Amino acid sequence: MSDFVFDHLRAERTGIPEAVLASGKSVEQIAAIAANVLDTGASLFVTRLAPDKAAALGHFGAALHYHPGSATAVFSAAPPPEPDTRGAAVVAAGTSDLSVAREAVQTLRYLGIGSRLIVDVGVAGLWRLLDRVEDIRAEPVVIAVAGMEGALFSVLAGLVDAPVIAVPTSVGYGVAEGGRAALSSALASCAPGVLTVNIDNGYGAAVSAVKILRVARHRQSG
Amino acid sequence: MSDFVFDHLRAERTGIPEAVLASGKSVEQIAAIAANVLDTGASLFVTRLAPDKAAALGHFGAALHYHPGSATAVFSAAPPPEPDTRGAAVVAAGTSDLSVAREAVQTLRYLGIGSRLIVDVGVAGLWRLLDRVEDIRAEPVVIAVAGMEGALFSVLAGLVDAPVIAVPTSVGYGVAEGGRAALSSALASCAPGVLTVNIDNGYGAAVSAVKILRVARHRQSG
Amino acid sequence: MSDFVFDHLRAERTGIPEAVLASGKSVEQIAAIAANVLDTGASLFVTRLAPDKAAALGHFGAALHYHPGSATAVFSAAPPPEPDTRGAAVVAAGTSDLSVAREAVQTLRYLGIGSRLIVDVGVAGLWRLLDRVEDIRAEPVVIAVAGMEGALFSVLAGLVDAPVIAVPTSVGYGVAEGGRAALSSALASCAPGVLTVNIDNGYGAAVSAVKILRVARHRQSG
Amino acid sequence: MSDFVFDHLRAERTGIPEAVLASGKSVEQIAAIAANVLDTGASLFVTRLAPDKAAALGHFGAALHYHPGSATAVFSAAPPPEPDTRGAAVVAAGTSDLSVAREAVQTLRYLGIGSRLIVDVGVAGLWRLLDRVEDIRAEPVVIAVAGMEGALFSVLAGLVDAPVIAVPTSVGYGVAEGGRAALSSALASCAPGVLTVNIDNGYGAAVSAVKILRVARHRQSG
Amino acid sequence: MSDFVFDHLRAERTGIPEAVLASGKSVEQIAAIAANVLDTGASLFVTRLAPDKAAALGHFGAALHYHPGSATAVFSAAPPPEPDTRGAAVVAAGTSDLSVAREAVQTLRYLGIGSRLIVDVGVAGLWRLLDRVEDIRAEPVVIAVAGMEGALFSVLAGLVDAPVIAVPTSVGYGVAEGGRAALSSALASCAPGVLTVNIDNGYGAAVSAVKILRVARHRQSG
Amino acid sequence: MSDFVFDHLRAERTGIPEAVLASGKSVEQIAAIAANVLDTGASLFVTRLAPDKAAALGHFGAALHYHPGSATAVFSAAPPPEPDTRGAAVVAAGTSDLSVAREAVQTLRYLGIGSRLIVDVGVAGLWRLLDRVEDIRAEPVVIAVAGMEGALFSVLAGLVDAPVIAVPTSVGYGVAEGGRAALSSALASCAPGVLTVNIDNGYGAAVSAVKILRVARHRQSG
Amino acid sequence: MSDFVFDHLRAERTGIPEAVLASGKSVEQIAAIAANVLDTGASLFVTRLAPDKAAALGHFGAALHYHPGSATAVFSAAPPPEPDTRGAAVVAAGTSDLSVAREAVQTLRYLGIGSRLIVDVGVAGLWRLLDRVEDIRAEPVVIAVAGMEGALFSVLAGLVDAPVIAVPTSVGYGVAEGGRAALSSALASCAPGVLTVNIDNGYGAAVSAVKILRVARHRQSG
Amino acid sequence: MSDFVFDHLRAERTGIPEAVLASGKSVEQIAAIAANVLDTGASLFVTRLAPDKAAALGHFGAALHYHPGSATAVFSAAPPPEPDTRGAAVVAAGTSDLSVAREAVQTLRYLGIGSRLIVDVGVAGLWRLLDRVEDIRAEPVVIAVAGMEGALFSVLAGLVDAPVIAVPTSVGYGVAEGGRAALSSALASCAPGVLTVNIDNGYGAAVSAVKILRVARHRQSG
Repeated sequence: MSDFVFDHLRAERTGIPEAVLASGKSVEQIAAIAANVLDTGASLFVTRLAPDKAAALGHFGAALHYHPGSATAVFSAAPPPEPDTRGAAVVAAGTSDLSVAREAVQTLRYLGIGSRLIVDVGVAGLWRLLDRVEDIRAEPVVIAVAGMEGALFSVLAGLVDAPVIAVPTSVGYGVAEGGRAALSSALASCAPGVLTVNIDNGYGAAVSAVKILRVARHRQSG
Repeated sequence: MSDFVFDHLRAERTGIPEAVLASGKSVEQIAAIAANVLDTGASLFVTRLAPDKAAALGHFGAALHYHPGSATAVFSAAPPPEPDTRGAAVVAAGTSDLSVAREAVQTLRYLGIGSRLIVDVGVAGLWRLLDRVEDIRAEPVVIAVAGMEGALFSVLAGLVDAPVIAVPTSVGYGVAEGGRAALSSALASCAPGVLTVNIDNGYGAAVSAVKILRVARHRQSG
Repeated sequence: MSDFVFDHLRAERTGIPEAVLASGKSVEQIAAIAANVLDTGASLFVTRLAPDKAAALGHFGAALHYHPGSATAVFSAAPPPEPDTRGAAVVAAGTSDLSVAREAVQTLRYLGIGSRLIVDVGVAGLWRLLDRVEDIRAEPVVIAVAGMEGALFSVLAGLVDAPVIAVPTSVGYGVAEGGRAALSSALASCAPGVLTVNIDNGYGAAVSAVKILRVARHRQSG
Repeated sequence: MSDFVFDHLRAERTGIPEAVLASGKSVEQIAAIAANVLDTGASLFVTRLAPDKAAALGHFGAALHYHPGSATAVFSAAPPPEPDTRGAAVVAAGTSDLSVAREAVQTLRYLGIGSRLIVDVGVAGLWRLLDRVEDIRAEPVVIAVAGMEGALFSVLAGLVDAPVIAVPTSVGYGVAEGGRAALSSALASCAPGVLTVNIDNGYGAAVSAVKILRVARHRQSG
Repeated sequence: MSDFVFDHLRAERTGIPEAVLASGKSVEQIAAIAANVLDTGASLFVTRLAPDKAAALGHFGAALHYHPGSATAVFSAAPPPEPDTRGAAVVAAGTSDLSVAREAVQTLRYLGIGSRLIVDVGVAGLWRLLDRVEDIRAEPVVIAVAGMEGALFSVLAGLVDAPVIAVPTSVGYGVAEGGRAALSSALASCAPGVLTVNIDNGYGAAVSAVKILRVARHRQSG
Repeated sequence: MSDFVFDHLRAERTGIPEAVLASGKSVEQIAAIAANVLDTGASLFVTRLAPDKAAALGHFGAALHYHPGSATAVFSAAPPPEPDTRGAAVVAAGTSDLSVAREAVQTLRYLGIGSRLIVDVGVAGLWRLLDRVEDIRAEPVVIAVAGMEGALFSVLAGLVDAPVIAVPTSVGYGVAEGGRAALSSALASCAPGVLTVNIDNGYGAAVSAVKILRVARHRQSG
Repeated sequence: MSDFVFDHLRAERTGIPEAVLASGKSVEQIAAIAANVLDTGASLFVTRLAPDKAAALGHFGAALHYHPGSATAVFSAAPPPEPDTRGAAVVAAGTSDLSVAREAVQTLRYLGIGSRLIVDVGVAGLWRLLDRVEDIRAEPVVIAVAGMEGALFSVLAGLVDAPVIAVPTSVGYGVAEGGRAALSSALASCAPGVLTVNIDNGYGAAVSAVKILRVARHRQSG
Repeated sequence: MSDFVFDHLRAERTGIPEAVLASGKSVEQIAAIAANVLDTGASLFVTRLAPDKAAALGHFGAALHYHPGSATAVFSAAPPPEPDTRGAAVVAAGTSDLSVAREAVQTLRYLGIGSRLIVDVGVAGLWRLLDRVEDIRAEPVVIAVAGMEGALFSVLAGLVDAPVIAVPTSVGYGVAEGGRAALSSALASCAPGVLTVNIDNGYGAAVSAVKILRVARHRQSG
C-alpha cells in the first residue's frame, strides 16, 4: 500500500482532483489511500463504494461522507460545501438509471456545480420528455443517462442546443446486457453533438461537464 | 439446376408464395428457377437483383418486370395487378434507407397490399416525424426502416397503436457498421410492441405485415 | 422516488398500459411505483419479480397478485378479470423455456387475451410438433419460445399461416449462452413471416400479439 | 517455393492424402506444389481454386482435372477413377449452398466414395425434406449443408440415425453474414448427434465422412 | 409439469434415448420427468446435475444412480448394465477438463460402449501425448477434450486415422474464457478430420461416437 | 427524391445546420438535396464525398466547393467565409489519421471556428507530443484523432485542462481493424474528461466542439 | 487423480518447471498433484490459489508457502531460496492491478530472478511515470501491468529500450470489462517492441521474462 | 505533408529506428516522408508496400530497395549491409504464411540480424516439425508464424527453451477469418513462454526479437 502515489500534481495540471474507483480495491487499499490524502489536508472523492465497504470504513467517522443512492463518498475533514452555481441538467430515462445519474450529480456537486435531476423521460412516452424540455434547455450542459436501446440520446440532442454527454447504462437484458446497445446508440447517433463516455460512467460525464463549463468561465475571464 | 424444387405447396400452406434471394445466386441459377416457375403458369418474386444481373436476364423480355429503386423483380406472363387496398405505412428514417424501404413497398404490392411511403423523419429532427404522425396512424401496420442508431423504432412505437415492424438497415459506419447498432436498438426497445426482422430485410417485414393484415381479414370473415 | 412519472397518457396513446421491469429496481422503488399507481385507481403489471422481492412486498396484501411460475405480478384493488376471448398459441420448445412462455401467457391475460400453451415440441422430435400443428393453427397469432439453436422458429413459420413472434430464450450453454444463437436463428430464418423480440422478452411478444389482434378488431369495426 | 515440404507421410499415418487450399496462395505457389507432387507419381487435390487461377494453370494440360461447380481440381497423370461404393448423403438446404455441397461431393469422390446430392430441402418447406427422408436414410453418413439460420441440422438429426456432419455456409446477410448464425445453430443443436466443421468447409466434412466409413470397414475386417 | 411430453418415439427413430439437461431445470421439473419416465418402465439419463440437486432427489432411492465426478445420473429401476464392448478413446488435455471427459465416458457407458480415459496429455508436454498414441490408436473413435487454446485437437488428428470428435471446454481465462478459443481451434484446425461439438458438450460427443460406431455395426450386418 | 425533407428548423432549434453524409447516397440523391437547399438560399455541408462523386457533381460549377484532403464539400452560392475566431486544437496521432482530422477542421471552419492542426504526435515518440503541449493548451477545446491503440487520448487528457473529444479512426489492422481498439481506449480511458464520438466521425467531433464553445459564448452574454 | 502425469521432462526440455493453475481445480485435485510432486523431491508452483482453498490445504503444514497478495503458493520441503540477481522491472498502472503484478513478481522469484515493483504510474498522471523512468531503464526486461485502456504499454515502450511484456488486466468496466480493451491496446500498440500475454497472466509474463534473460546468459557463456 | 515530424530521437531513446506502415498512406505521403528522411542522411524502413505503390515510387531510383515477397522496402542512399550475426529462427506453418514470415526476416535484416526461415511445419504433420527442431533450437529467439488455429505456437513452446514470439496471421476462413482464432490460440497457450504480437505483424515480432537479443548483448558488455 505504501506504493500508492497520489497525483497531487494532476489537480494543478488538469483542474480536476483525482478520484478513486472503489470497485476493484479492497477496504484496506481504500483506507490507506484515504488516510494518505487526509494527511495532506486534501479531500478524496470515491465512486462505486458498496454499502458494506462503506460500513467497513466507519472508523473514519465524520471524515467519511457517504451517499448510498449514488454509491459515492467524500473523505474530508470538513463537510463538502454546497455548490453555488448550477450548470447541468442530468436527465435519466428511467428509475433503473438513477444510481448512475446520481453518481453524476454527486460528482458535479463535489466539483462545485449544482445540477437539476430529471427522471422517467424515456422516449417510449415522448410527452413526458417534451414536458420537461424547457427545464433541460435552461442548463448549458446536458448529461443524458439511459440503458436499454438508448434512444433518449438522439432525441435529446435534436431538441436542445447544449452539448449532450451520453452515459449509457448497463440497464437491460438480452442484446442490451451490460449496456452495449445503449453505447452503440450513443456513438452512432444520427443527431450531431452527442458525446459519449463509458457505460455507467456518471463520474466521467460529470468531470467532462465541469471542463466544458470551465471553457466558458475561462473565456469570460480571458 | 435440375435439382431445384420449387415449393408450390408452401403458398397453400402459409399463404405466401416463395420468393428468391438473388444475391447468392448466379444469373444461370436465377434464369433456371424463373423459367421453371413461369412454365407452371405461376409468377416469381425476386429480391436483391443487381442491375447487371437484371440486364443479363433481358431475354425474358416482357415477362421480367424489374424495379431498380428496390432491386426487386417479378417474373410473370402478365404485369402484376395494382393493389386495391392499402394497409401499411412504410416509414424510412433517411434517404440512405430508401432502397430497403422500397423493397418492402414492392413486396407488399406483389402480395396485393398498397402502402404509404414516408421518408426523412429521423428523430434528430423530431418535428418532421411529428408532422407525419397522423398519416402513419391512418394505417393498421407500420414498417419502420432505419440504420445508424435506430432510435426511430422506439419513438414510433410510443406514438402509434399499430404493431411496428422494425427493419434495421446496414446504413452507418463505425459501431453502426453492417446495421448492428440499429438491430440492437430495435430488439432492446423500451417501447413494447416493436417486432424486428433481420438487417435490410424489407421483404420479410412486408410478408409479416401481410400475415398480420390477414389475421384481421380472417377474423372479419370468421 | 418522488421523481417517478407514471405514463398514464401512454395507455391512451398506444392502447397498452405501462408495465414495470422489476429486475433492475429495488423493493422500495417498486413499492413506490405501485402505491403511486394504485392511488390513481389504476392497476400495474410487473415482470421479472423474483420470489424474495415479491415476499418483501407482502404488505400490499390482497392488492398484490403474484404468479411465481412466470415471475409476474399485478397490483390492483380487484383481482384481474379472466379473459373472455382466446387469440394466441404460445409454443415452447422445452421445459426450460416455460418461465418465459408463462410471462407471455400472463401478459396476454392481463391485457384480456386468453391463450393456449403448448410445451415440449422441440424440432429434434419433429412428430411431437406435427401432432400439435392443428391446435396451433387454430389461433390467429403464434408466440414461439425457444432457446438453444432456435430451429423451432423456422419450422413453425413454414407450417402455419399466422404471424410467428419468436422469443429466443437464454436457455443453453457454450455458443448458445445468453440466447444469442436462438436470437440469430430467429432473425436469419429462411421462413418469411418470423418477427423477433429481445431474448427472454415474453412480455414484449405478448404486447405485440395484442396489437396484432387489435388490427383485426379495428378493421372489423372500421 | 523450394521450402515447400509435402507431407507424404501423413497419407500413411492418417489415411488421408494432403490437399491444398488454393485461396491464400499464388498461381506460382500452387504450380510449384503440384509439379512437386506429380514428380513423385502421386496426385494432389486442390480446393477453392477460382476459375481464373485454374485458367492460369492451363499449362498442366491433361494432368489438371478442374471442376468449376465446386472450385476443386485434381492434379494427376491419369484421370481419377470413379468410386465404386456409395456412402454419404450430401443434403443442401438451397441453391446458394450448392458450391459447398459440391466441394464435399468431389472430395468424397477423390477419396473413393460415391454420394447422393439432395438439394432445396430447407425447413421452411418441410414437406420437401420429408419427401426425401428415405433417400437420406439409405446412406450411412449424412453431410448437411446450410446457411441462413441452419435449422436443417437439427431437423435432420432428429429424423435419421446416421451421424450428421453439419457444414454451415456463409450464405446469408445481416446476423447470418459469414455463416455465424448457421454455425451457432449446428453447435447448439437440441438434437444430439450433430458434428460440426468450419464454415464452408465441405472438404473437411467429406474427409471426416470417409474416416467414419473407414471405422466400419476396419471393424468388418478386424 | 403435466405438459411434459417425453419423446419415446425418438429412441426408435434415431436409436438414441432422450436425455435431460438438468442445469436449466428445477428439482421439481426433473423429478416430474423422471417419475414420468420410470412409470413407463424406461430409464432416463440426466446431465449437469449438480450435487445439491442430486441430494434433493434422494427420495428416488435406489432408482437414482448418481455419478458426481461427471455430474450425470441415471434414473432406472435396475442398475445400468456394464458395457461389453469398448469403442472410444476419451483424451483430456488436463485435470481441469476431467468433468467434461467423464460426462462423455458416462454417456458412452449408458449407451453400452466402454471407453479408455487418457488424461494430462496437453501439447505443451508433447512426449506425454506421444507416449499414449498407441493406446489411442487402438480405439476406432477418439473424443478429444481440451480448453485453453485447444491445440490438442489438431495434433491428435494428425497422429491417428480415427475420426476425432473435439469437445472444447470452458477451462481458461482471458481470451479463452468460456471456451471460445478452444472452440475456434477445433473448427479452424489445419488437420482434416476434426469434428466439433458445443463447448463442454461431452454428452453430444458421446452420442455422436455411438452413432459412428453403429455405422460400422450396420455395415457389418448389412 | 421528392420525398426529401430538409430540416431547416433544426438549425434554429439546435444551432447547427444539417449536413449530409454522402457515402450511402447516389450522386443523383446528393444532387437533388443540394439543389433543393440552394433553392432556399441556404448552404449545405457534405461529408465523405469521394472524388469521383465530386467530379460527377461538376455541373454545380462555382456553387460546389470541394476539399479533397478531407472529402468534404460546401454547396453555396457564395464561397464560405473565413472564420474570424480560433477555438480548437485538432491533434492527429499520425499521417494516416489526417483525412479524419481534416474533416473536423473543415467542419469547424464551415461553422465559423478556426483551428490549429497538429500532426504526428503519437505517444510512441512522447517528446514530439510534449513539444507541442503549449500549443495545444492554448485552445479551449481539443479534438484528438487517433487509430491503432488510441493511447493518445489518455495521455492528452492528462496533460491539458480542456475537454478532450476523442475521434477513434479506422487506421490499423488485426485487433485494431475498423477502429475498435482505439474506440475502446477512448471510452475506457483512465483519464477523466475524455468524450468520445463514433469511429472516423470528425464531423461529429467538430459539431460538439462548436456546441461547447457556444456554452462559453452563451454564458458570457447571459 | 491417479491419472495425473506431471511433466518432469518439460523442465529439462524448456528450462521451466511446470506450474498448476488452481482456479479450475478442486482442493482434492490440487492436493493430489502437490503430494505427487513433493514425493519426487521436487517443488510445485501454484497460481490463482484463493485464500479459502489455501486454508483447506493447511495439512501440508510447512511445505506450503502461501503468498496471499498474489494468490500464489509454493509447495516445497524447504523454503524457496531468495533470488540473487535482479532482472525485471514490474510496472503496474494502478492499485487494482497489484495482484497480477505480484503474481509476476512471485513467479520471477520462484524462478530465481529478483524484480523491482513500481506502482501507480498510470499515464493520466504522466509525471509519476516519467519520475520513475530511470528506475525502469535500469532493468533489462520490463513487465507492464495495466487494465482500463492500457495506454501504459505504448508509452512505456516508447521510453525504454528493453523488451516490454504487456500484461493486460481485467480491471475495468463497460468496454474494458474483462480486460479486452487493455488487451487490444497492447496488441495494436503503435510502439514496436510490445509483446503481449493473456489477460491477467502475470505468470506467463514472468516465465517469458526469464526465458529472455536466459538468452543473455546463454550468449554470455556461449 | 509538411506537418510530418520524423522521430529521430526515438532511435536514440529506444534503439529502434522508426518505420512507416504504407498501407494507410498515399504514394504522395510515403514519398514525402522518404524524401524528408533521405535528406537527413538516414534510411527508412517501410512495410506493407504494395507492388503498385512501389512502382509509383520508381523515381527514387537506386535509393529504393524493394523486396516484393515481403512487401517491404528500404529507402537509403547505399544498399543496406548484410547482417553479420544470426539470431532468430523464423518458423512458418504453411506456404500462405510466407509473406508475413518474410516481413519478419527483412525487418531483422534491416536491424542487423540474420535469421533462418523454416516453412511448412504445421502440426497436422507433426514429424515435419520434429525433423526441424534441432535447427530451431540452434537460435536464441524463435518467431512462429501461423494462421488457421495456430496450434504451432503451443507445440513449439513446449519443444524449445527460447522465448517464442507468436505472429498470428490472417490466413484462414470461417472462424479463422482475419486471424482471430490464431490470435486466441497464441494468447491462451497452455505452454508458458509464448509472447504475442498483433495479427500479421511480422515487423513488430522482429523488432521485439532484436530487443531481446540486445538484452543479451547489453548483459555481456555490462
